[in-house]
Amino acid sequence: MYLSKNDIENLEFTFRINIINSITGIKPANLIGTISDKGITNLAIFSSVVHIGSNPALIGMFSRPMKKVKRNTFSNILKTQFYTINHVNENIYEGAHKTSIKYGKNISEFKECNFEEEYLNNFKAPFVRESNIKIGMKYVEHKDIKINNTVLIIGEVQNITLPDSAVSSTGYINLENSKSTGISGCNTYYAVKKIKDLSYIENELKKK
Amino acid sequence: MYLSKNDIENLEFTFRINIINSITGIKPANLIGTISDKGITNLAIFSSVVHIGSNPALIGMFSRPMKKVKRNTFSNILKTQFYTINHVNENIYEGAHKTSIKYGKNISEFKECNFEEEYLNNFKAPFVRESNIKIGMKYVEHKDIKINNTVLIIGEVQNITLPDSAVSSTGYINLENSKSTGISGCNTYYAVKKIKDLSYIENELKKK
Repeated sequence: MYLSKNDIENLEFTFRINIINSITGIKPANLIGTISDKGITNLAIFSSVVHIGSNPALIGMFSRPMKKVKRNTFSNILKTQFYTINHVNENIYEGAHKTSIKYGKNISEFKECNFEEEYLNNFKAPFVRESNIKIGMKYVEHKDIKINNTVLIIGEVQNITLPDSAVSSTGYINLENSKSTGISGCNTYYAVKKIKDLSYIENELKKK
Repeated sequence: MYLSKNDIENLEFTFRINIINSITGIKPANLIGTISDKGITNLAIFSSVVHIGSNPALIGMFSRPMKKVKRNTFSNILKTQFYTINHVNENIYEGAHKTSIKYGKNISEFKECNFEEEYLNNFKAPFVRESNIKIGMKYVEHKDIKINNTVLIIGEVQNITLPDSAVSSTGYINLENSKSTGISGCNTYYAVKKIKDLSYIENELKKK
């Protein structure tokens, strides 16, 4: 199958959304936890969480177009500065998916989707108790992407909570052991299965 | 295991890089193909390719800090405007990983890592013949992320080439069928295994 730009623009609406949302490959499934200045918690699934840097430890995520609907996650982050990233594992992906339903602004997705709020070490934003790998984040800045009215939200890692058993002696997280899931498109969930650890390229360079 | 911001900053250097590169969950494995204005091709593995929007069809990716080393991919994109995104499948991940080795600027990773350049429908940038799912891209803009000197490169999809068998009647790509791989950290490759298609939330909304 070959699709030109013109073909893509003329695809049926849903088909186009599905294929373009699938085309980048596997995406990480994460739940973003926030709390409003009025104390109402919010939980939303994001498939656009992306590593930006290790020192400082920076993570990005894209928020969808702002014009049509109120985006509670971004709004809460701007007001309170703090948010959490929680891996969606194989036991909770169905509840996680339901957080995409647009509930009223006074209703918490934690309750509606059967997740328990967890406040670890006095961190201001709620973690998801049912998640195995949890990151506390602080807002750093955002970049407006005017061409389609989206926003890249950049935050710095404040803390990490995860099972000892998921981390190797060299710092690698085994995503198969943690049962962390991936998403393709908007609705399809995947398990991950480790193929192989390859060598760190910088080491190979030193050997040359 | 609980790591505070202070704990993270004091982690041994490699351990910190590994855990922070793993913490966002599974990342897609893609090869970016470019060609310089002198006609020298370049191929580089990226784990930061991210969906930004479907209409227009926009894809982003982050280029690592520019100050220490010359980044041929970004430089070629700025000069020629065109590049390709090619899924790394289970048959080619070892060669794809080797593209991270710093070869001289007159040496093409296509040749060094045993990939064949493919020019489809007169597209100016080289595709990877051995890849199953290939996207032709045109540069749109980039955003400087000054806090760690990285760059978000944004491009628009110009064309898509993929096997008919990988696409459902509603436009979803089955990443297990295409054997597309994921990466955790810098060096660990994962296969993906479909768990389930869930319903499209907008449809659920309409039912309510």
